[in-house]
Amino acid sequence: MKSADLATGAARALERLRATAPLVHHVTNLVVMSDTANVTLLVGASPVMAHAAAELDEIVAQARAVVLNLGTLDDTWIAAMRQAGGRARELGVPVVLDPVGAGASELRTRTSRALIHEIRPAVVRGNAGEIGTLAGGGGAVRGVDSLAAPEDASSVVREAARSWGAVVALTGPRDFVSDGERVVIVDNGHPWLARVTGTGCMAASLVAAFRAVEADGVVATAAALACLGLAAERAAERAEGPGSFRVRLFDELHDMTPERLAAGARYGTP
Amino acid sequence: MKSADLATGAARALERLRATAPLVHHVTNLVVMSDTANVTLLVGASPVMAHAAAELDEIVAQARAVVLNLGTLDDTWIAAMRQAGGRARELGVPVVLDPVGAGASELRTRTSRALIHEIRPAVVRGNAGEIGTLAGGGGAVRGVDSLAAPEDASSVVREAARSWGAVVALTGPRDFVSDGERVVIVDNGHPWLARVTGTGCMAASLVAAFRAVEADGVVATAAALACLGLAAERAAERAEGPGSFRVRLFDELHDMTPERLAAGARYGTP
Amino acid sequence: MKSADLATGAARALERLRATAPLVHHVTNLVVMSDTANVTLLVGASPVMAHAAAELDEIVAQARAVVLNLGTLDDTWIAAMRQAGGRARELGVPVVLDPVGAGASELRTRTSRALIHEIRPAVVRGNAGEIGTLAGGGGAVRGVDSLAAPEDASSVVREAARSWGAVVALTGPRDFVSDGERVVIVDNGHPWLARVTGTGCMAASLVAAFRAVEADGVVATAAALACLGLAAERAAERAEGPGSFRVRLFDELHDMTPERLAAGARYGTP
Repeated sequence: MKSADLATGAARALERLRATAPLVHHVTNLVVMSDTANVTLLVGASPVMAHAAAELDEIVAQARAVVLNLGTLDDTWIAAMRQAGGRARELGVPVVLDPVGAGASELRTRTSRALIHEIRPAVVRGNAGEIGTLAGGGGAVRGVDSLAAPEDASSVVREAARSWGAVVALTGPRDFVSDGERVVIVDNGHPWLARVTGTGCMAASLVAAFRAVEADGVVATAAALACLGLAAERAAERAEGPGSFRVRLFDELHDMTPERLAAGARYGTP
Repeated sequence: MKSADLATGAARALERLRATAPLVHHVTNLVVMSDTANVTLLVGASPVMAHAAAELDEIVAQARAVVLNLGTLDDTWIAAMRQAGGRARELGVPVVLDPVGAGASELRTRTSRALIHEIRPAVVRGNAGEIGTLAGGGGAVRGVDSLAAPEDASSVVREAARSWGAVVALTGPRDFVSDGERVVIVDNGHPWLARVTGTGCMAASLVAAFRAVEADGVVATAAALACLGLAAERAAERAEGPGSFRVRLFDELHDMTPERLAAGARYGTP
Repeated sequence: MKSADLATGAARALERLRATAPLVHHVTNLVVMSDTANVTLLVGASPVMAHAAAELDEIVAQARAVVLNLGTLDDTWIAAMRQAGGRARELGVPVVLDPVGAGASELRTRTSRALIHEIRPAVVRGNAGEIGTLAGGGGAVRGVDSLAAPEDASSVVREAARSWGAVVALTGPRDFVSDGERVVIVDNGHPWLARVTGTGCMAASLVAAFRAVEADGVVATAAALACLGLAAERAAERAEGPGSFRVRLFDELHDMTPERLAAGARYGTP
């Protein structure tokens, strides 16, 4: 896929996001709820967090995308992810799965695999260790951090995408996105993204926001990752450390324009 | 009620807040816990978050106000809100109810109505969609955002206040506060308040802090909303976007003085 | 213990932290999860938050230190603290216990005592009211704030440390640290630390990070408290209130160097 087409697609998706403010429902972890709600809001979507069995079906029916994030999973939250994901699948609402910590515990690996199988997420986003573990392509995880990346990230995301029937995004210093055919590399970002908790989770929320208004999952995912990475580059210029960087990142997401995104996105191919 | 009297009341309430640091107990949602604890602390009160059945009676007995917020409700948290609210009613501790998302799901609408009926909150604060839904005066909600406001907000808050025996605050670009007789409009604020998650929840926490030291619920609620709105106006002057605005908002709440609040509050009548 | 030796120990511990990025597992409260994860990351360790029974044994086995924090305890979280703490004890992984609100409710006091007895934490960190309550040396607590400090903090921490077989840290404007023999006072800090929610919890996370790489609990605890206090002093110089102070505090923790810590730490003896 040509970089120029991706850039045009990203700009149009951001325009639609701002024009329609789609509802993005989250069943996510306790650490990042505030930050992910804020980035979802700042990029132009409308976040909602809900997990009660009694209301999930109703809330999902209003949503244009759903985020399932395993960060602080337990039986209650796994049940909520299953219910929200199942309902989304029924209704054709795209699901973004963030398998936080897959590989760090049997529970996380098993739950991630079960959700991929049952829910057929539109997009799976993880770090190298998580995607590598789930794809069987190598990778190691300690806690929620990637320790080792698969050797050939492009092959891993392409094979995983084929196997899961999903767009797969392996994010890190370089992001790799594939739908099983196309592979796109996103080269925006800044090292301080790794010094702030939950930027991977923020990425998943942004992917869901873009996917809510853009049916081509590769275009939507690459747009979201470029948007976050570009905002990070700009934020870092005026920050004095990861604390002020996080604050500026929110400012920059709010200030992002379709033109700026199209001009600043750095897409490539393997 | 005269604006000058409201301004004097606001200043005196803030003085008492700073002098007495009343304990404000929260049973609130998972997204905003940190932000609401911080604003409660910065305005001069002492926040505590607790939800275990085994300690709620003890904690509420130490509190001078209680916040019940439905943002991420489930069976456990509904039970905790019922217990804390029931105990507060027994002891005469004022309760501020924030019916987040009422109208977005049957569970939220039903739970909000049940809590209003059972607990007889001192103040109910919501956005136009939430209050409109609960009051039957129109309004629509999607997720946790107000989509449509009732046509005549002054009438809605007055009628709701009469029906519920509570002070009712409908907050938005203009805030409407009524006890069923008086209606006060608060015109402080800034559009970026809508670009930060949980500012409505922060407003509810500030209302509880002021209500803890001021028995006139209209004076206390109008003071809290003016305090937040004025801090927002000042914060926006030195911020570069909603991210830095949120940080400055915290600084400004800390810096707020009784004199500044009395001079900057913009009260009106319908 | 000589101040120069403590300073050297602090610098070496920070070097090891940065070199090894030890995993610090948290079973902590819902209010501070994001902030404590961020400070753990910024000082150089790798935070993970997990509480599901099905994965705790596995997660703890990967950790080099464990934080147990009672801030928003309930039956589920108490069970998780017991399991994580028990497993850590079996494996010899040091546990830092933060008995938030001990003295404010019977549940908190009882749970703190039970965890001290069962788990034999390496370090117990609390404010004056919490430590005073648990040690029986005086102290009062309202909500999660210390109301009254024990009269002789040095004696209290020394006696508590002997009784519990732990390093005990009573933190406040001055911090007192003892292992039952040595008593060290840490005089770094800034009043705005008391105007930000959860700085005590952040201190506990930093203690765990240092304790993960430094077996002498007094050296590790004093290093962590000096590191937080020194970062606070530097942050306050460039902040305009507690909101921007909190952001700068994160920047300063990231910027802390072994040399700066050794030069800026203010250690004393009673």
